[in-house]
Amino acid sequence: MGVVTDRRRVVRVREGVRAARPDTLAVEEPLMVRLVAPGTPLGAPRPLGGPRLVGPVVPVGGPLSDDGAPARPGSETLTVTMRTPGDDFDLVAGWLVSEGVVGAAADIAAMRLCPDEDNTVEVALARGVEPPRARAFATTSACGVCGSDTVVEVRAALRWPVAGDPVTVGADVISALPDLLRERQRAFERTGGLHAAGLFTADGEPLYVREDVGRHNAVDKVVGAALRDGALPAAGTVLQVSGRASFELVQKAARAGIPVLSAISAPSTLAVDLAEECGLTLLGFVRGDSMNVYTRADRLR
Amino acid sequence: MGVVTDRRRVVRVREGVRAARPDTLAVEEPLMVRLVAPGTPLGAPRPLGGPRLVGPVVPVGGPLSDDGAPARPGSETLTVTMRTPGDDFDLVAGWLVSEGVVGAAADIAAMRLCPDEDNTVEVALARGVEPPRARAFATTSACGVCGSDTVVEVRAALRWPVAGDPVTVGADVISALPDLLRERQRAFERTGGLHAAGLFTADGEPLYVREDVGRHNAVDKVVGAALRDGALPAAGTVLQVSGRASFELVQKAARAGIPVLSAISAPSTLAVDLAEECGLTLLGFVRGDSMNVYTRADRLR
Repeated sequence: MGVVTDRRRVVRVREGVRAARPDTLAVEEPLMVRLVAPGTPLGAPRPLGGPRLVGPVVPVGGPLSDDGAPARPGSETLTVTMRTPGDDFDLVAGWLVSEGVVGAAADIAAMRLCPDEDNTVEVALARGVEPPRARAFATTSACGVCGSDTVVEVRAALRWPVAGDPVTVGADVISALPDLLRERQRAFERTGGLHAAGLFTADGEPLYVREDVGRHNAVDKVVGAALRDGALPAAGTVLQVSGRASFELVQKAARAGIPVLSAISAPSTLAVDLAEECGLTLLGFVRGDSMNVYTRADRLR
Repeated sequence: MGVVTDRRRVVRVREGVRAARPDTLAVEEPLMVRLVAPGTPLGAPRPLGGPRLVGPVVPVGGPLSDDGAPARPGSETLTVTMRTPGDDFDLVAGWLVSEGVVGAAADIAAMRLCPDEDNTVEVALARGVEPPRARAFATTSACGVCGSDTVVEVRAALRWPVAGDPVTVGADVISALPDLLRERQRAFERTGGLHAAGLFTADGEPLYVREDVGRHNAVDKVVGAALRDGALPAAGTVLQVSGRASFELVQKAARAGIPVLSAISAPSTLAVDLAEECGLTLLGFVRGDSMNVYTRADRLR
């Protein structure tokens, strides 16, 4: 398990009076995600502590999966992201879902912490699973990018359409989710600096709650936890997030098959447009018994 | 000028009563940034409206800059980011500062909106300015990434060290900044969904205020505006942001030569560590006459 909070010295100013004291902060550290080919010799596995492995850990020099594929020289860095340590395997698995790469736990042959270095997760995809493609820095003469085209492309590539999900949710259940989420945030109270995401049943029962300095990471961790439990597509569920609803958060929900996304703050235009296109119910400004329903209000009882 | 807010239909639920009505939302649209070589034929420039050009706009088929370099076939997509339209040239310029690519307006030979498509800015760097390198998806067998190494690397690569900036700021000035920022947020009141960043003098005089759905974009827009005015390094200034202080925001401030960063909410551990390493004053939880000073409290009067 990673360290979620840590202390730093702070000078507190209150009504003109200064006092030096320790302060508890949310930890932010880089995480490197590396893609290794099946059969790559990886050296000794290191003790893993908290996180559960999706696939098998292999002995020194052995293949990462047992399909006998030849080793590749080197490996690819898929991404480097700033995150709060802990639940790193959930984060990587959920990120792969959000990128449209995997849809089941079996699509990931194995994940493990790099034996030599901190903050690195190595992942091997199962045979036939295409790795994510580079999205930026591509050499091209193509020009132009458009929100409405992007929205249509995301919907067209969905693994599990959510438009047909027949779930309905009571307004009283939605109203209760922000407090349920907050109660389960272990680190927020100590730091005031962590976002959270929680997946709930339509009756408001919590399934997964995760925290991170990055709100996108918190959602990826929730989605990854569900993937690893074989719980995707997350039909009939509600995702509650602690902040705003951006295009990217709606995309993450839709790609995980989550039919209802509820945000404490405002959505953007493109978040609403994507939710509309995908048939996902999007709620915002959920505060007390007030809320705004931007799309598919037929799911709200 | 881009459209900053737009309307969508919403079902408002208040005390159990539903009412359909239009709602004003913050616009989110993708922006593609393309790097073109000097001399690339670019077709007819389109009318530019609000944003100011850094470099010259050239006629149909002409070179983007006048140094006679041969045209390159195609161009490179540097990044695609979700942003609120408007101030796009500020955004691109500031992003290039944050990436460590440029340090003066003259480092950008020209920028313009793509003549054929929406949401695309083409940028040509001046001769001798190295374009940004791809950071993710690099093929490598290297392993490991570490917060403290990252912090040292950022400080070592700073164009303008901020540690020696002799500015001091009154606690009363810091206390006033959140309200000064909010008063200048044109779109927030209508949407509740926009982050803001503002650059102020040490006396609290506003220099640049920009809004965006993404808090990183808001800072890039402020930094880009300063670059284009020849105001970098932004010695003696204070950057006020509407949210939390992450590693990335401290990095952006440091790379622009801003000695004081003030956040309304919490910083992360790595934000504090980077501010400490760079000699930047970092304040958080700035609320009324209360505030936390995490680093270089000697600058607070």
